[in-house]
Amino acid sequence: MLLDDKIVKIREDFSYLDEQKLGRKIIYLDNAATSQKPNCVIDAVSDYYKYQNANPHRGAHYLTVKATEAYENARSSIAKFINAKSSDEIIFTRNTTESLNLIAYSYALENLKKDDEILITILEHHSNFTTWHYVAEKTGAKLKIVYLDDNFSVDMTDFENKLTSKTKLVSVTGASNVTSCMPDIEKIVELSHKNGAIVVVDGAQLAPHKKVDMQKINCDFFAISGHKMLSPMGIGILYGKKDILDNMKPFMYGGEMIEYVYEDYSTFTLSPTRFEAGTMNVGGAIGLAKAIEYMEAIGMDNIYERERQLSEYAVSQLNKIPYIDIYYPQNAKNVGSAIAFNVKEIHPHDVASILDNFNIAVRSGHHCAMPLHKYLKINASCRASISFYNTKQEIDEFLTHLEDVRRTLGYGLE
Amino acid sequence: MLLDDKIVKIREDFSYLDEQKLGRKIIYLDNAATSQKPNCVIDAVSDYYKYQNANPHRGAHYLTVKATEAYENARSSIAKFINAKSSDEIIFTRNTTESLNLIAYSYALENLKKDDEILITILEHHSNFTTWHYVAEKTGAKLKIVYLDDNFSVDMTDFENKLTSKTKLVSVTGASNVTSCMPDIEKIVELSHKNGAIVVVDGAQLAPHKKVDMQKINCDFFAISGHKMLSPMGIGILYGKKDILDNMKPFMYGGEMIEYVYEDYSTFTLSPTRFEAGTMNVGGAIGLAKAIEYMEAIGMDNIYERERQLSEYAVSQLNKIPYIDIYYPQNAKNVGSAIAFNVKEIHPHDVASILDNFNIAVRSGHHCAMPLHKYLKINASCRASISFYNTKQEIDEFLTHLEDVRRTLGYGLE
Repeated sequence: MLLDDKIVKIREDFSYLDEQKLGRKIIYLDNAATSQKPNCVIDAVSDYYKYQNANPHRGAHYLTVKATEAYENARSSIAKFINAKSSDEIIFTRNTTESLNLIAYSYALENLKKDDEILITILEHHSNFTTWHYVAEKTGAKLKIVYLDDNFSVDMTDFENKLTSKTKLVSVTGASNVTSCMPDIEKIVELSHKNGAIVVVDGAQLAPHKKVDMQKINCDFFAISGHKMLSPMGIGILYGKKDILDNMKPFMYGGEMIEYVYEDYSTFTLSPTRFEAGTMNVGGAIGLAKAIEYMEAIGMDNIYERERQLSEYAVSQLNKIPYIDIYYPQNAKNVGSAIAFNVKEIHPHDVASILDNFNIAVRSGHHCAMPLHKYLKINASCRASISFYNTKQEIDEFLTHLEDVRRTLGYGLE
Repeated sequence: MLLDDKIVKIREDFSYLDEQKLGRKIIYLDNAATSQKPNCVIDAVSDYYKYQNANPHRGAHYLTVKATEAYENARSSIAKFINAKSSDEIIFTRNTTESLNLIAYSYALENLKKDDEILITILEHHSNFTTWHYVAEKTGAKLKIVYLDDNFSVDMTDFENKLTSKTKLVSVTGASNVTSCMPDIEKIVELSHKNGAIVVVDGAQLAPHKKVDMQKINCDFFAISGHKMLSPMGIGILYGKKDILDNMKPFMYGGEMIEYVYEDYSTFTLSPTRFEAGTMNVGGAIGLAKAIEYMEAIGMDNIYERERQLSEYAVSQLNKIPYIDIYYPQNAKNVGSAIAFNVKEIHPHDVASILDNFNIAVRSGHHCAMPLHKYLKINASCRASISFYNTKQEIDEFLTHLEDVRRTLGYGLE
């Protein structure tokens, strides 16, 4: 297994594994909700606030120049990481949710009209669902939903059938936070562009795990959350093509995004500052840039391979257990490392609580994907989501204690 | 001078004063742009990410329970700090700008109509100016502006004249980031409510410096930026009265703010979660709560008194210099500690650059208040903004080197 020789060293970078300081041992398999953060990221943020802190872009003194450099270098790192054409295409937001809402308010509300169609998939996270309910309600556009094939993946035939000349905006997940399906977004972009639709990719569960390249994917917008990829919370990214961004109205209004303010009207800068009103999360941006540096030092391909091997192992073992239902694509070309499952006859919250007694952190609930759960004819599920810093031993402990769940509640093991 | 006996100890809490590690000495007089952060705040955030990090409200395991507790305790601390009736009235945002935009999108766009009036003052920061340009443009409401008296303060007669039965929303700064005027917001609220208008207070420059009490002020909304009050960037507060908040439409759409999501529509929770879509800046919230604890240990009254004494001293000395124009209320009952000024015949950017050579950080420009500068018939100004952790010696150095500015550029001192 890749990284196996390095993993002991990598795990030293994560303080949550310090059982004494944390207060107990933890096998953290809730990485799709938020990742843990390596010490170098935490320290980079601390160092910024100790020795470089000032409001960037807002003055001529030593510290403000340092803060501006740090902030704009972070933007450049991110542009390079996702292969954007320019750092002007990188807008700092709070998280993927804000990135998607920015598109909704500044692009969709202004460009969509009655009877236009918005196309999403049933896999989408609520942030990529309710946002379009709002746009549909405001504009009179229609929201259409693509369903899945038998392997928990986007049904591309259904997609092609529902993509019409009326489709003006397609918004799809790059990787499902429940089924781990990674749709063929390059194909989706190609087909959508041919139909004249712009494409938004929710990259929250993709960018932390697999190399993404804006020039190859060729989507119009791509949204990322820093906190799911080793960074502090409160920092996210919206990538957008520059010509589209510069023709969008601002989202929030305030300092730094204006050109001139008169008593009766204002004019605005271009991207990215047009969309960054007020003092931004500079510490967060620096943390995200450091996280990217950390991931690139390991290698995104190595991260993907390791997570894939760990999750394939977990899935193959779960497949053998008769009382487990699993919602994960089998033998998929590309797939994520979040494994949703249910223990027959037992509520997912009970499963998570019992596992927690054995120091294992998994998530239970609808994972902000109620429509998907309803489509799968379940109310909720458990999810074990794996990161490269997890180990095979941790997966084994998780599997072992999964048996204890039914035992604890007095059920048999068949 | 209050705190004089404690100030050496307090200054040990701020790493930016470590000349060796910072790379040089700095006299930081740019506190109105962003404050420096004490080590206890920086450490609280680090500790969170090391030993408590998880996505709150989203699971049953040990870490998520700890993260939820930490996040909700932070909300309670802030509610107590500003004397809100309930922590349900505290919404976490990125900054004051987002707080004001949230009101614009979720309240004003839905409640204002053609010929309604929005009343602001010429003191307002761009975030409290351009936001209302947008609302006025969208709704057809009219934006009216209250001007100043001869003492750089809100002209209350002009306010009373412009407040009419058509006024539906009044939005005023609690303390100007340029003139330091602290309008009589209790009076403004009382008069506005009598006229049936709701009142928004931009508290970004007030809350860091003076005790605020939502029950006494009785405004409907109050906005705060954490980064101006010893906290990390990327965290802010919107206070709103619960009955108003619960009747507002959501701002951003996504996880945590929904009740149910169906394929064709969604329903939403009440405040505060209704307005907190997606993963919030939990580290930032914890940092802000720690900052409040730190300020309360010193005492908000002590902070206000010290900053007032330092700024009164600076102003009295600046008043004696013939080539300085100063834009600061003299003998005001309440006043902030940001001192805007110009050195005659010299561009503010040159003043700031030359002062920077002497390790003094002041800001130059329009301070996100172009309409105010135009009203004052100047293009730009310098601003020295003082915090309680500054010293009289620092003010003296600033004053001494202000003389060097004209000398450096070959002007006389008269």
